[in-house]
Amino acid sequence: MQIYVETIYIKTTRNLDILDISSQVQSFIAKYPIKNGSVQLFIAGSTAALTTIEFEEGVINDLKRAIERIAPTNISYEHDKRWGDGNGYAHVRAAILGPSLIIPFQNGRLLLGTWQQIVLCDFDNRPRTRAITAQLIGI
Amino acid sequence: MQIYVETIYIKTTRNLDILDISSQVQSFIAKYPIKNGSVQLFIAGSTAALTTIEFEEGVINDLKRAIERIAPTNISYEHDKRWGDGNGYAHVRAAILGPSLIIPFQNGRLLLGTWQQIVLCDFDNRPRTRAITAQLIGI
Amino acid sequence: MQIYVETIYIKTTRNLDILDISSQVQSFIAKYPIKNGSVQLFIAGSTAALTTIEFEEGVINDLKRAIERIAPTNISYEHDKRWGDGNGYAHVRAAILGPSLIIPFQNGRLLLGTWQQIVLCDFDNRPRTRAITAQLIGI
Repeated sequence: MQIYVETIYIKTTRNLDILDISSQVQSFIAKYPIKNGSVQLFIAGSTAALTTIEFEEGVINDLKRAIERIAPTNISYEHDKRWGDGNGYAHVRAAILGPSLIIPFQNGRLLLGTWQQIVLCDFDNRPRTRAITAQLIGI
Repeated sequence: MQIYVETIYIKTTRNLDILDISSQVQSFIAKYPIKNGSVQLFIAGSTAALTTIEFEEGVINDLKRAIERIAPTNISYEHDKRWGDGNGYAHVRAAILGPSLIIPFQNGRLLLGTWQQIVLCDFDNRPRTRAITAQLIGI
Repeated sequence: MQIYVETIYIKTTRNLDILDISSQVQSFIAKYPIKNGSVQLFIAGSTAALTTIEFEEGVINDLKRAIERIAPTNISYEHDKRWGDGNGYAHVRAAILGPSLIIPFQNGRLLLGTWQQIVLCDFDNRPRTRAITAQLIGI
């Protein structure tokens, strides 16, 4: 059994970015001799999250709308009153979606569904360089 | 340290299915010599999710209502306009709940709470055979 | 590769508690010789959840308000009609946020963001002693 770790860096914009990172994760796995196991993903920071979705523009917009219903941008946030960051909604969204994900792979291929991609959701109101720790465990 | 993997298949209906899969996961663990560790669960596909809940009909219905508030069936989805699948709500729900779960076990028993079961939530609008990759890691 | 397990116990109140447990998780890691790997956290019980957030009073209140929108306390729950527990909302909230989390660490330090803490969310309407299984895997 072996373990390998790397940080995947992704640049984001000031908008609500939902970005397909499946190929970066797949490339990470391809670099190491482990063929079967799982990859653990964790995004550092409290205004971003990881999940999976069909990476198709229509449903990405649908997800953005649902996220807007859960934590609207146009309501008042205590966080913003205290700190003036203007990104209170981003913190709430990230906490609800969650920072970690674990995905199995076999023969070096992620066991995602045909229409299922790994996405980074960046809710913050300024450009960021996101650091995702990817850790392989397997044989 | 050892690792074992299996796929658990579950048939679902066209309705919103929330199904208790705890006994299947427990049976999977019982087949292998690992007694202490954790089981990683991942559901392939972008219209289903995994979580835990007390598997009791009342609260399952309560969860269904909350999910309906988060991503209602009766609003318009861009996904449906583009692809005609009619399951845009299912994709949004699955992305918010998430596809992966990790549960520890000790002496061969899942360390769930007394009233806590592992559930598969299938949000799709047609029957599916769901594939859940279950991976044991432990000693 | 090694594996270590412990249970972290946290006392909660009858209110909606969102508690920073990062130092407990960091202390757990510090006790063992593993320096690089990940810690898997799982909370037993169906009325609590784990996530990460900036542990700052303003945004914690903002998160509480978002959770109240997702599963309000002042609507009717089937769970409560059947069982009289009065905590139907707590079950729904816990199922949506989820019970498990996986966080990497390097040189013995959790790879959290600067403003990112691990939080236990206890949604139940009575005081509880929560049991979080923490499992280290690494080298």
